[in-house]
Amino acid sequence: MRQSNLFGKTLREAPKEAQAISHRLLLRAGFIRESAAGRYYFLPLGWRVHERIKQIIKEEMDRVGGQEMLAPVLHPLQLWEETNRTKTTAFELMKVKDRNEAEFALGGTAEEMFVDLIRKFKLSYKDLPFNLYQFSTKFRDEMRPRGGLLRVKEFVMKDAYSFDRNEAEFKKTYELMRQTYKRIFDRLGLETVIIEADNGYIGGEYCHEFVFPSEVGESKYLVSEDGKYAAHEEMARFYLQDKNSQEKILPLKEVTAKRGPTMEDGVKFHHLPPFQQMKDLMMVNEKNEMILAVIRGDLDVNETKLLRLTKSLTLRHATEKEIKNIGSWPGFISPVNLSKKVKVVADNSLRTIRNAYTGANKKYRDLLNVNIGRDYKPFLEGDIAQAQAGYLAPDGKQKLKANRGIEVGNIFQLGYHYTHLMKGSNFIDEEGKEKPYYMGCYGIGLGRTMAAMVEKYHDEKGIIWPETVAPFLVHFLPLGTDEKIKVAAEKLYSQLQEQGTEVLFDDRPDKTPGEKFADADLIGIPLRVVVSEKSLAQKSFEFKNRGENRVELVPVGESLARIKSQSQIIKYD
Amino acid sequence: MRQSNLFGKTLREAPKEAQAISHRLLLRAGFIRESAAGRYYFLPLGWRVHERIKQIIKEEMDRVGGQEMLAPVLHPLQLWEETNRTKTTAFELMKVKDRNEAEFALGGTAEEMFVDLIRKFKLSYKDLPFNLYQFSTKFRDEMRPRGGLLRVKEFVMKDAYSFDRNEAEFKKTYELMRQTYKRIFDRLGLETVIIEADNGYIGGEYCHEFVFPSEVGESKYLVSEDGKYAAHEEMARFYLQDKNSQEKILPLKEVTAKRGPTMEDGVKFHHLPPFQQMKDLMMVNEKNEMILAVIRGDLDVNETKLLRLTKSLTLRHATEKEIKNIGSWPGFISPVNLSKKVKVVADNSLRTIRNAYTGANKKYRDLLNVNIGRDYKPFLEGDIAQAQAGYLAPDGKQKLKANRGIEVGNIFQLGYHYTHLMKGSNFIDEEGKEKPYYMGCYGIGLGRTMAAMVEKYHDEKGIIWPETVAPFLVHFLPLGTDEKIKVAAEKLYSQLQEQGTEVLFDDRPDKTPGEKFADADLIGIPLRVVVSEKSLAQKSFEFKNRGENRVELVPVGESLARIKSQSQIIKYD
Repeated sequence: MRQSNLFGKTLREAPKEAQAISHRLLLRAGFIRESAAGRYYFLPLGWRVHERIKQIIKEEMDRVGGQEMLAPVLHPLQLWEETNRTKTTAFELMKVKDRNEAEFALGGTAEEMFVDLIRKFKLSYKDLPFNLYQFSTKFRDEMRPRGGLLRVKEFVMKDAYSFDRNEAEFKKTYELMRQTYKRIFDRLGLETVIIEADNGYIGGEYCHEFVFPSEVGESKYLVSEDGKYAAHEEMARFYLQDKNSQEKILPLKEVTAKRGPTMEDGVKFHHLPPFQQMKDLMMVNEKNEMILAVIRGDLDVNETKLLRLTKSLTLRHATEKEIKNIGSWPGFISPVNLSKKVKVVADNSLRTIRNAYTGANKKYRDLLNVNIGRDYKPFLEGDIAQAQAGYLAPDGKQKLKANRGIEVGNIFQLGYHYTHLMKGSNFIDEEGKEKPYYMGCYGIGLGRTMAAMVEKYHDEKGIIWPETVAPFLVHFLPLGTDEKIKVAAEKLYSQLQEQGTEVLFDDRPDKTPGEKFADADLIGIPLRVVVSEKSLAQKSFEFKNRGENRVELVPVGESLARIKSQSQIIKYD
Repeated sequence: MRQSNLFGKTLREAPKEAQAISHRLLLRAGFIRESAAGRYYFLPLGWRVHERIKQIIKEEMDRVGGQEMLAPVLHPLQLWEETNRTKTTAFELMKVKDRNEAEFALGGTAEEMFVDLIRKFKLSYKDLPFNLYQFSTKFRDEMRPRGGLLRVKEFVMKDAYSFDRNEAEFKKTYELMRQTYKRIFDRLGLETVIIEADNGYIGGEYCHEFVFPSEVGESKYLVSEDGKYAAHEEMARFYLQDKNSQEKILPLKEVTAKRGPTMEDGVKFHHLPPFQQMKDLMMVNEKNEMILAVIRGDLDVNETKLLRLTKSLTLRHATEKEIKNIGSWPGFISPVNLSKKVKVVADNSLRTIRNAYTGANKKYRDLLNVNIGRDYKPFLEGDIAQAQAGYLAPDGKQKLKANRGIEVGNIFQLGYHYTHLMKGSNFIDEEGKEKPYYMGCYGIGLGRTMAAMVEKYHDEKGIIWPETVAPFLVHFLPLGTDEKIKVAAEKLYSQLQEQGTEVLFDDRPDKTPGEKFADADLIGIPLRVVVSEKSLAQKSFEFKNRGENRVELVPVGESLARIKSQSQIIKYD
């Protein structure tokens, strides 16, 4: 296409608020423009890249039997009520009423819609398994959209939903999708780390994020030195080293402790190591039940793990008043002799220490020699500890490193989470009995993937698109206004169009060579071809790959064939 | 693809509430499924057709220089306030608030969004003209969704917006889009009638609907016998035949008239022809101004024309109380000696009669010999008359016929409507001055187009898809469970896949030949190929085109090549 017709202009400077490189470059190169905060226009150049990414995802989804379809964007709200997600998604969910006061959710993900669709059919085991997917606009009422396309309120997502007969079959589907996602990101040239993550309000028991490592990403994860273990910090497990669990158990003892309320105050007062202290965290769930989380003093409670272990929808810290109301005292909480109204949840780490010290549920009174099992019996025991860089990986050998990255895709086991909650989402099994579907779901955000690619593929002058997703394959720049140049340029341009090469032809008469070069570098089309007085003097065009410095003169007569061979997108196999 | 894997099932019966043929067949054949009223899932078969229609539209838009992009679905409401459309769209507009109480419209059309985008750029005359388009989900809070995909609340629309330097250039763009739309519907095999229509809340001065004639359509239009004039009934003009305008003008006379309030009552009482009576319609606009529309007694007022002529946003009938309040009397209204608060709007037809009779703004009093100009001077004079079948077309020769059809596309002149209302939507002209853009917009509803195609391409057994949009090109049916059949079938299926033929392979083991034939007819794939014991006995496959009755035996060895040649989609040029 002729650049003089192309809508969208390059900018010399990005607005100051644009910090992430992908944000700056996509704005400057004329790929996107902001509408309201977190809502973007994709301009023609940007949309071409978006569509190429879409095509790659589609090809890979189809290759493994995915079936594309489309569900409505507005979801009847009662479906979300069936699955409790009106509560668990909290503020992120946008809702709208129609003229008849019927309420709808603006789709954030579409599990309910797909389950509601399949339960309209009387399907049998013979119809299973299947995997349905769509590309559609999703809405997230994010508190803080940021980084251009990195975190937005509206975006096109590929979301897929798989329906299997049972867990064993699902595991094959899940593995197939894991491989498919790997292929997709490989084809896009994004090496991703696959990390264990929390299912959050999507539901289900386990999931994996595909993360492109990058400083501008928001997914913080821990990874073992050998890379074999990787998990989101919300989820990451680690090897619990023993502390003093071989010590002799001593008798419980209550002492006066005129100290401040912090952990440090406790350590100073008792002259005992921090690990021997107990950390007591009083929380309140959505049913107003009080939960006391206790953990070894040198560790921190991970609230996501606590949420999961206690099967809570939400958790908040108890107020001082609430703590006093149940007969305890802020800064002096203890699981020992605590009100029966409070559910005590103990971290596994409390089995690695003995003779711990903590409060006595009274002001200025502490307990010494507290031992789990003897002095208090937790309602629940499990892993609620926050992993940190430097801890040992679960294998007990490798150290964990902290890293961050851009979450470009994720795959979720949903199991029976939705099909148990949504009445009638059953198929008829081999014996004629109704059985719920075993589900998974799989998402990729297209805009964020595009941003991740720019984070990877750029230099100080602009973007360097891989051929697989480039908006055009050739950027053709005639320099100068000489008639000879014009004739040669128009000729090659029409030949390129004839042979079906996707070319952006910079025919803008009012731009200097310097401006054209700068724009070409900024936009980042893989192959730049220049025709100028200088090149024609040598009966040549000047070829340069965007990612390389080498400039090559190619004879006019060979240029067409050379471009054709160079601009073939390599078929991935 | 293997039909055993295909999601979606055919139904023997459509639900009773499905009346339109396209609704019944698309449901029964497993192309669509309803979510909530007027909101549909496109199942994999339906989505394949939808995507084919999209591709044809895209190719034709690109051919004339259209540039695809994407605007957000949620439009900042203040943009719609800038153009008054929050008022004019009335109930059809859906609105939503985000967590920060910012209000958004769910896009119905996107004029404001595109104008808001282009005004972010400092464009000059050199950047013009351009035509931007998108495929995106649109929302209309319709009172009565009906007919499956014929009238829905949510649908994918191709909407395009053109920006020109001036009216002369725009006229070329408009004509190009008219031709492009004609090509699109030609390629889809839909012969459309292009009718003049009302711009409604879209704004602008004129527009054209592309209508596929069909009894289930909602666009009522009038068309001249030779087809040269066609217009929506809201808009249609006609030739005003003279009545008694040669009569001598007589003196105005007030008489007692103890009659009822209807037109018939007037005719009976005065023994004069209906055309000589005046019809008086008291209306109230959105500013609470009263407007009296007057017209020849044998004609009806067209409220759409009245709205436009008076530049009102809304109009409603005045109440009896309001009529009395301004000193008139219901059933006896007259423009003569009427309160100055009322704006009199006269139809052109009042110039074709003399010595009319009407009320005298008092109960049981009429005026005789009322003549426009002498007895009352209208605030506005123009065409506010409703055209009817049987009237003469504007040429004064052809008779008008009434018809109805499905509005599948429309093109609108917008002129300066938006660029005058939205501050800063200017470009820099040749002399360095700021000038507003001259705009047009162009829409096609994809689902409705799909429905229109089914209304046209079907028989009593099911759909008959044209090859251009068919979900698959070949439906391959092995009949019987014999190993020989299975081997021959699997062989041809893998050969077809290798040569890239889009084939649906009915490998379902539990279906009888009768069920397979019925499904094939219902789904409507263009070429059906059968392998059976009977066909193999003759070393052949059985070929049948969906739209024909003839069955042909093709030798096994020739089948692959034959399918290849028959299943090429003819390139349109």
